[in-house]
Amino acid sequence: MYKDMSKEQLVREKEKIRSVYDQYKAMGLKLDMSRGKPAPKQLDLTEDMLLHCLDGEFISENGIDCRNYGVLDGIYEAKRLFMPMLGVGRYEIIVGGNSSLCMMYDSIARAMLLGVLGGKKPWSKNDRVKFLCPAPGYDRHFAICESMGIEMITVPYRADGPDMDMIEDLVKKDEEIKGIWCVPMYSNPTGITYSDEVVKRFAALKPKADDFRIFWDNAYCVHHLTDTPDRLLNILDECKKTGNENMVYIFTSTSKISFPGGGLAVLAASEANINFIKDQMTYQTIGYDKLNQLRHARFFKDYEGVQAHMKKHRKIIAPKFETVLKMLDEEIAPLNIGEWHKPHGGYFISFDGLDYTAKRTVQLCKDAGVVLTDAGATFPYGKDPRDRNIRIAPTFPTVDELRKAMEIFCTSVKLAAVEQLENQK
Amino acid sequence: MYKDMSKEQLVREKEKIRSVYDQYKAMGLKLDMSRGKPAPKQLDLTEDMLLHCLDGEFISENGIDCRNYGVLDGIYEAKRLFMPMLGVGRYEIIVGGNSSLCMMYDSIARAMLLGVLGGKKPWSKNDRVKFLCPAPGYDRHFAICESMGIEMITVPYRADGPDMDMIEDLVKKDEEIKGIWCVPMYSNPTGITYSDEVVKRFAALKPKADDFRIFWDNAYCVHHLTDTPDRLLNILDECKKTGNENMVYIFTSTSKISFPGGGLAVLAASEANINFIKDQMTYQTIGYDKLNQLRHARFFKDYEGVQAHMKKHRKIIAPKFETVLKMLDEEIAPLNIGEWHKPHGGYFISFDGLDYTAKRTVQLCKDAGVVLTDAGATFPYGKDPRDRNIRIAPTFPTVDELRKAMEIFCTSVKLAAVEQLENQK
Repeated sequence: MYKDMSKEQLVREKEKIRSVYDQYKAMGLKLDMSRGKPAPKQLDLTEDMLLHCLDGEFISENGIDCRNYGVLDGIYEAKRLFMPMLGVGRYEIIVGGNSSLCMMYDSIARAMLLGVLGGKKPWSKNDRVKFLCPAPGYDRHFAICESMGIEMITVPYRADGPDMDMIEDLVKKDEEIKGIWCVPMYSNPTGITYSDEVVKRFAALKPKADDFRIFWDNAYCVHHLTDTPDRLLNILDECKKTGNENMVYIFTSTSKISFPGGGLAVLAASEANINFIKDQMTYQTIGYDKLNQLRHARFFKDYEGVQAHMKKHRKIIAPKFETVLKMLDEEIAPLNIGEWHKPHGGYFISFDGLDYTAKRTVQLCKDAGVVLTDAGATFPYGKDPRDRNIRIAPTFPTVDELRKAMEIFCTSVKLAAVEQLENQK
Repeated sequence: MYKDMSKEQLVREKEKIRSVYDQYKAMGLKLDMSRGKPAPKQLDLTEDMLLHCLDGEFISENGIDCRNYGVLDGIYEAKRLFMPMLGVGRYEIIVGGNSSLCMMYDSIARAMLLGVLGGKKPWSKNDRVKFLCPAPGYDRHFAICESMGIEMITVPYRADGPDMDMIEDLVKKDEEIKGIWCVPMYSNPTGITYSDEVVKRFAALKPKADDFRIFWDNAYCVHHLTDTPDRLLNILDECKKTGNENMVYIFTSTSKISFPGGGLAVLAASEANINFIKDQMTYQTIGYDKLNQLRHARFFKDYEGVQAHMKKHRKIIAPKFETVLKMLDEEIAPLNIGEWHKPHGGYFISFDGLDYTAKRTVQLCKDAGVVLTDAGATFPYGKDPRDRNIRIAPTFPTVDELRKAMEIFCTSVKLAAVEQLENQK
């Protein structure tokens, strides 16, 4: 174990690892593991959606020509795919365009410019707007806040979700806190799923701001990796029980079910929220791409079709997660220089190295041809206070590429660790 | 001619027309001419785009897998369709999603929240934001302003474009004026195309606001109805000559070329504007639907392909415009109770009845089963000061349906006219 080594031992160890690292570097690899991208083989699974599922029949069940204008909130057969997925009714959902990120951005832009249901004025009419950001989290959530000048308050994660004591306390006393980002299932990047207690405590929040919203990004709700998937309590149902049904916006998409950038995005919320949002949205667009909605409805048929399809994804990506976890178990665990969680689903493995080693590790990987998400990206303002979290995205490379990339990753983790420990001596 | 009739003659005439009107009403027709919608036969023209043009080949010319994430500003082969259409270069264009209305809304939302290139602060940080609105114009342009609390100033139209004296004067002295809406070619609804002089005067504007933008919605640039189409001067080129190249945003879409709601939207502007906008847009989305971009690029091949395709549209819709114009010439012209322009392209015929008859005419049509765009909709705040403008959208109905609808329309125009003249006696 590195931590027990003397300075001299560490220097010798460093030289040993360095020579291994230099050999990898000399191989001139080029691998991009920076984003959670499906592999081409996964995209092949929905090929028929692009080829034959429309086949000259463009009329929706209820007689709408999907090639022409109209239908702001999505065709019903598309809604029906997502209603059981999110546990919401037909008047509690909007099927939108190709990007749930865009739906989240637009929801915040509308809140800033126009306000939300029950709010007295647009968010932007306040001197300051603040968001709670459980971290490590999704960098693009935090980037939206940063781009709009929304102040971010970092909330730490526990084993079963974000620190609810802190959240309850903060929203109760600070009217400037208007929202919180959550990835409640197979969280990006930690992989954990919020416990029932955490969901219930979210639903029971008593925010001081009457225009506070939970941004519940349920991106990975059907992205299971095991036969015993996690279960997430239905936040909208819980909010109805507490009389807080207008407090939550739920998002999901098929970006990692059908096509990233060519899929469907979904917003679900209380009927009152949905009606309010539709009234605002009608100025932005006449409607989203109903042909693509029809493609999805025809291809998947129903929610059971989506679930069956996700098993095919699992078959492709589960071995990749296993490869990463196996190598971490073999290479890093015995040295006690890192921690990680074995996720039951989602797209990421969140790795915590020794304090103050993440930036160095990512740089070492990059120099050896393996591009990872920037260290710090999983925290507000890109600043990981302990500089230890690295997001590993195993889905895009092949298993062989991944094995090589993980050899380089593990070597880099070790090198960064001994360097750091040596400096502390 | 109605205007020369005595009160008694008008009453008799009214009774005569009323009985004709009642016969139409009894027929119980149901026709919607409220929006500029392509007819199903027009949509059939691009059927192959949905069936075979991808056929298992999803990689763009330069190697991008269009099924996966990436490429914020659109794939190059899609840009190439629009560059010659708008007369802009490859770094002066963004190919976006399915709606140019959405791109315009988002451009204004970004300007309000974040500001534009060269501006000192976001528009919304001013006490008031004003837009110039040449009218009659496109109702959804005005609705965007209204939804965001942007004050609209109506500018009248002349034969060759909006009143440039008024525009020059207003933008020069009022820093709160941040933009102007233009449909410069086959304008919605007037059908006119801005003259070279008007375009040059736009390019030479000296707005007091350093963050003023011309919203140049060139929606109908290839939608010709004659062999001698109108010509529109290239506004970006003209703005470059006057050193105003960052003053204009150009928009267009394929909504009425391929599919409304299933087409491509485009934003063109100076390279500096485009880079600035991309830097802002990157927080909203990872990218638009590249599969749909690829479909369009493969189907049309190049700009010549688009032009050839538009001739097929013309063949379907030109007879509809002729039907409307012929009936107006026969039924309304001799009575001198209305004016209209014969457009060389676009989607509308703008009809001006006698003052204070438009609302009544639209109501009469509606009661007889013909739904038109609301009277007043073509003016800011939905208020036509003279209550005389009606937008006729001839494309969606069949020629037979259109003939019936126009019989009802002409009868309603006559009835509203005699009622109005009688009241004035």
